[in-house]
Amino acid sequence: MSHHTRSGQGGRADIDLALFGALGDLSQRKLFPALYQLDREGLLDNRTRLLGLARQELDIDGFKAKVEAALKTYVKAEEQDRAALKRFLARLDYRQLDFTSVEGYAAIRDWRQEGLERPMVVYLAVGASLYGDICRHLEASGSLDEASRVVVEKPIGFDLDSSNEINDAIGAVFPESRTYRIDHYLGKETVQNLIAMRFANPLFGTQWNQNHISHVEITVAEQVGIEGRWGYFDQAGQLRDMVQNHLLQLVCLIAMDPPANLDADAIRDEKVKVLKALRPFTDDMLGRDVVRGQYVAGTINGKSVPGYLEEEGANTESHTESFVAMKTGVENWRWAGVPFYLRTGKRMPEKLSQIVIHFRQQPHYIFDPDQRGLAANKLVIRLQPEEGIALEVLTKDSGLDKGMRLRRGPLHLDFNSAFPKSRIPDAYERLLLEVMKGQQYLFVRRDEVEHAWRWCDSLIAAWEDRDEAPRRYPAGSWGPVASIAMITQDGRSWYEDY
Amino acid sequence: MSHHTRSGQGGRADIDLALFGALGDLSQRKLFPALYQLDREGLLDNRTRLLGLARQELDIDGFKAKVEAALKTYVKAEEQDRAALKRFLARLDYRQLDFTSVEGYAAIRDWRQEGLERPMVVYLAVGASLYGDICRHLEASGSLDEASRVVVEKPIGFDLDSSNEINDAIGAVFPESRTYRIDHYLGKETVQNLIAMRFANPLFGTQWNQNHISHVEITVAEQVGIEGRWGYFDQAGQLRDMVQNHLLQLVCLIAMDPPANLDADAIRDEKVKVLKALRPFTDDMLGRDVVRGQYVAGTINGKSVPGYLEEEGANTESHTESFVAMKTGVENWRWAGVPFYLRTGKRMPEKLSQIVIHFRQQPHYIFDPDQRGLAANKLVIRLQPEEGIALEVLTKDSGLDKGMRLRRGPLHLDFNSAFPKSRIPDAYERLLLEVMKGQQYLFVRRDEVEHAWRWCDSLIAAWEDRDEAPRRYPAGSWGPVASIAMITQDGRSWYEDY
Repeated sequence: MSHHTRSGQGGRADIDLALFGALGDLSQRKLFPALYQLDREGLLDNRTRLLGLARQELDIDGFKAKVEAALKTYVKAEEQDRAALKRFLARLDYRQLDFTSVEGYAAIRDWRQEGLERPMVVYLAVGASLYGDICRHLEASGSLDEASRVVVEKPIGFDLDSSNEINDAIGAVFPESRTYRIDHYLGKETVQNLIAMRFANPLFGTQWNQNHISHVEITVAEQVGIEGRWGYFDQAGQLRDMVQNHLLQLVCLIAMDPPANLDADAIRDEKVKVLKALRPFTDDMLGRDVVRGQYVAGTINGKSVPGYLEEEGANTESHTESFVAMKTGVENWRWAGVPFYLRTGKRMPEKLSQIVIHFRQQPHYIFDPDQRGLAANKLVIRLQPEEGIALEVLTKDSGLDKGMRLRRGPLHLDFNSAFPKSRIPDAYERLLLEVMKGQQYLFVRRDEVEHAWRWCDSLIAAWEDRDEAPRRYPAGSWGPVASIAMITQDGRSWYEDY
Repeated sequence: MSHHTRSGQGGRADIDLALFGALGDLSQRKLFPALYQLDREGLLDNRTRLLGLARQELDIDGFKAKVEAALKTYVKAEEQDRAALKRFLARLDYRQLDFTSVEGYAAIRDWRQEGLERPMVVYLAVGASLYGDICRHLEASGSLDEASRVVVEKPIGFDLDSSNEINDAIGAVFPESRTYRIDHYLGKETVQNLIAMRFANPLFGTQWNQNHISHVEITVAEQVGIEGRWGYFDQAGQLRDMVQNHLLQLVCLIAMDPPANLDADAIRDEKVKVLKALRPFTDDMLGRDVVRGQYVAGTINGKSVPGYLEEEGANTESHTESFVAMKTGVENWRWAGVPFYLRTGKRMPEKLSQIVIHFRQQPHYIFDPDQRGLAANKLVIRLQPEEGIALEVLTKDSGLDKGMRLRRGPLHLDFNSAFPKSRIPDAYERLLLEVMKGQQYLFVRRDEVEHAWRWCDSLIAAWEDRDEAPRRYPAGSWGPVASIAMITQDGRSWYEDY
């Protein structure tokens, strides 16, 4: 039988899953709840088994108790279902394992014996420094076969060199066709909907270029600060932590040329073309088109919060950025002259991820002169807090005394209200399901990682040469004033409708 | 002072109105309620007076009682307002008048003496056969001055010749710049919104042509039958009664090139260009692209209704059509090759007026093959029963088991829900306000009437040559089967989402 269910349209995923780091935060908060949801919706084969692996000494009942507790915490009450929970817990097994030592891996090989006829998915919910050891030991212990797949989480390294090291180590055991690099943004319904919006709708598809779009804006704002991981974050900074992966993935999906089909490589080939065409950084851009920020103490939701340099464990000399805004572009025929304004930061006033496609103004304006500035068409694609798509149009103001006055009105495609019956699945549900089906189009290919790093590395190198302190911004603000100035100098402003 | 308030943004209309046919159906059902609403919204000047004219002997109190009764009947309870009603009734005056005899018109001249400093609007809510007499007698009696305006209602004649006669008679007294020909469809918010949608939104404006639109569909379905006016209707038929005015006006607003500005003649010049470019009828089109129908007995809302030939007063030999469907086109650069499918009929299953703009399919299709037929983008502009605009787009189906399946979803611009605070004014409110402001862009210019008749006359002449019985359709159906076949032969279907 084939190990690869190609389409899986309605078919169940028939795999076994070995989860490294099964007691970690990601597993508890995201992966077990997602697996439970897949099971509840009937998308796991009856035979599918889940093996938890962690360093902790724990018997199977202790493990199940922990998973059950996680589900009780992270699955909505109305989605908790006694029978589904029981079925799910019955799939679980657990092995204590020292990931760095090959000895214990025999347990995985033995567990595999029952499921040899179906692929094993190995999910590495652990630090990237362990990827190499784990892959080697899996192979050395005879736990793998030619259908085994590996799933890894970002961050893949710290720069191009370190990411190459990690990818080499994985690649020595798993070929690219069985390697699934997660960027959970790609699992969001709205991000996938970008593909449908662009390529199923000629109304948008035919206008998706520099003739019709004036600029693109992407905001990924976090409300949280460093949350006890200062040491890790200070080595990275916001550019590595958010831009290199999430924001560039969004840029790719917005900017890519239409793929010839939906095959994983057809799509990823187009994404790589975008990354290769990203405008390289030059010295004169650094002061003008890039803004680095670092938050100082401020107020969020009426609560005082400390500055970045006052967080626990902080090195008060740090120049690491917690905010970055930039004006960049994609230098090809489709996007020539269209600025892409990106910004992302911590300790913003709210949690917000959204893309705004600004269409060009009317070539000729015939309505009341004082309304001339009214921007006509914007497509607002929101990922957080609620997923949704809205198209802004100008219509006639309907008041009798208004004559032919215009009014901005949104045409809303709010998934919840437009299609009340559908639950919006969490990104990890979608991504796990795609791994199980052997479909890679929502996963990041190695050359994507490399080109993204190459671009970011050049910016980081320039920053390091200058060694300037980042601009300060109060926690609870939208970043340094310079970020506003950066877009204002082009006669534009960050979209504000939240 | 100027008699013409050009913009009137928020300004009040300062006119006097003389209403011929003040006891007729149109006045009672539409005009007095509309005038009351304008007054209630503060859009009538304090001095504005309304003079009712009719044949009936009636004192002013009797007249006010009739108007008050009409308002009680035709204005929504929550929009009835004691103070506004009192103010409105105080504006009224009444004169008994034999329209065909010049003697009585002195009463109008006398009534005018109080309001000479402001324009008089003369509204002819009477049959077109009286227009000539009334205009002549108004002039002869010295009731008019160079600021007086006349408002006339459709139908303007029966064919090109008879409409010319009527327009000549009006034109002998009122120049075109002070003649307001009403087609109440032009007063509908949604129809005016077509102008905003097309010319304020580049997303639509740049795609509004044969490169992007595959076809256009207009349905004006009436649920009513002949309602006691068989004799009148049988002389006209549905083509004259609905297509020559309402449907062609909609065709004009959809198809016209962008006007250089919103001046009445800039817009009407463009509309005339459309009428001139309408595809002429040829013999081979008659059988293929035009369907005439006449209803036979059937059922509507569970109630049996008689056939056209069984209505009261019917001549059972009549070949008059109560339904017409046609495939036509606008032969210019913008619309070459784009069919306009029109249909209108009586005794349809429901009252429905809507325009559907069908955009072309994707040039290349990459989603599931079984969804290939799924039409992508349609702009649905509904005039009745509720006014509203919806844009149909394809999005990703959000079910987890759906993979990259598409789903048709509407982006709704429902005026009531999108802007809950605005009342949608009745078409007559808008039109009366525009007459008072001296703005003509929502009124039909003489050459529009002429070109519309010229086109319809050629079709009618061909029908008369053939003298074929119309095809039968049961009351409560969407017309003869041949109307379905007409669009099906092009691989399309009438939009059905009601």
